[in-house]
Amino acid sequence: MSDPAIARRGMMLVLSSPSGAGKTAISRELLDRDSNVTMSVSVTTRKKRPGEVAGRDYRFVDATEFNLMINRQELLEHAKVFGNYYGTPRAPVEQALSEGRDVIFDIDWQGAQQLKESARDDLVSVFILPPSHDELDRRLHTRAQDSEEVIAQRMAKASDEMSHWPEYDYIVVNRSLKESVAQVQAIVAAERLRRRRLIGMTEFVKRLQDGQ
Amino acid sequence: MSDPAIARRGMMLVLSSPSGAGKTAISRELLDRDSNVTMSVSVTTRKKRPGEVAGRDYRFVDATEFNLMINRQELLEHAKVFGNYYGTPRAPVEQALSEGRDVIFDIDWQGAQQLKESARDDLVSVFILPPSHDELDRRLHTRAQDSEEVIAQRMAKASDEMSHWPEYDYIVVNRSLKESVAQVQAIVAAERLRRRRLIGMTEFVKRLQDGQ
Repeated sequence: MSDPAIARRGMMLVLSSPSGAGKTAISRELLDRDSNVTMSVSVTTRKKRPGEVAGRDYRFVDATEFNLMINRQELLEHAKVFGNYYGTPRAPVEQALSEGRDVIFDIDWQGAQQLKESARDDLVSVFILPPSHDELDRRLHTRAQDSEEVIAQRMAKASDEMSHWPEYDYIVVNRSLKESVAQVQAIVAAERLRRRRLIGMTEFVKRLQDGQ
Repeated sequence: MSDPAIARRGMMLVLSSPSGAGKTAISRELLDRDSNVTMSVSVTTRKKRPGEVAGRDYRFVDATEFNLMINRQELLEHAKVFGNYYGTPRAPVEQALSEGRDVIFDIDWQGAQQLKESARDDLVSVFILPPSHDELDRRLHTRAQDSEEVIAQRMAKASDEMSHWPEYDYIVVNRSLKESVAQVQAIVAAERLRRRRLIGMTEFVKRLQDGQ
């Protein structure tokens, strides 16, 4: 008799980084390569932009609906950015986890802190850092016409964001996309073998012992 | 400037399994493939067997010396098996960890429990299970001339050992040596990225922020 896979609860994989450290490229690669990983779709009050697809890029709602979602505790975390609200709906995440699928969250340290409170053992957090100050500086000079003042502001923001590394479980230094994706994949592979996520273990070991 | 690697403290990787689940083959493969991993060499009071090399297979001492090591708290764990004493010397393990090397321990659940008390955050424990009752039964029938009574005793012992799975961090079901080695390698790769092992992070982030 071939044993069926051991039932597993999914994980919430949080990827955070300062601007310019490459977290979005890493998330995309993971989603492309691993069909068991899905992206959390945020809900927002901001207007849909050209090219965006409702339900894929965001779930678009008005401010009244957003406030109702907060009051009903339907959001795992939410934040206001440039006058618009953004949040993470709880129900689709809970459904994915209970089906053994893993959910990626591309969020900043504030969002990660909020998630931590409701997620507990489901959360696996990874902080992505640039390999060096020079490389970070190069990545923040995204447009040739940016003034040195704008660049300095971005660097100050990145510096502040980086100071939150002690709040994360794992640290990945992004020297190359290929190497970093492999490192995050190793984290995902290992975390899938965590005893506390293997909700079918009691039953599996009982079958090993009894031969039934 | 290319950044030097971030200083890391090594881990103590404990591999345990019931008899016949294949942990020794997995340990050997890991040691062959990863030069940063070493095996903990136990100290024992039993006689050296033909083919064994002192200092490689075991450190051989007499009972007086072994008792002195216990009293001086030079052992991380020790046990008496068939009238002989076996123990894990503390100093070489501490030296390896402080140099960023990882140490494998091929020990049973009693040894793992003792290690846990002194190792704390350094410990990463993996429990290896056979894929099915039939496969375990097959592996326990190692010699054709063994009586059914001997086999039944081995199965009872394996069954008792398996009940300790909830004490481990990770569970690997050994369906094939290749797959299991890859899984343990993923665990090692991930645990090397654990924030709490990266003792050089404060300094690394300071360099990222200050550009010095």
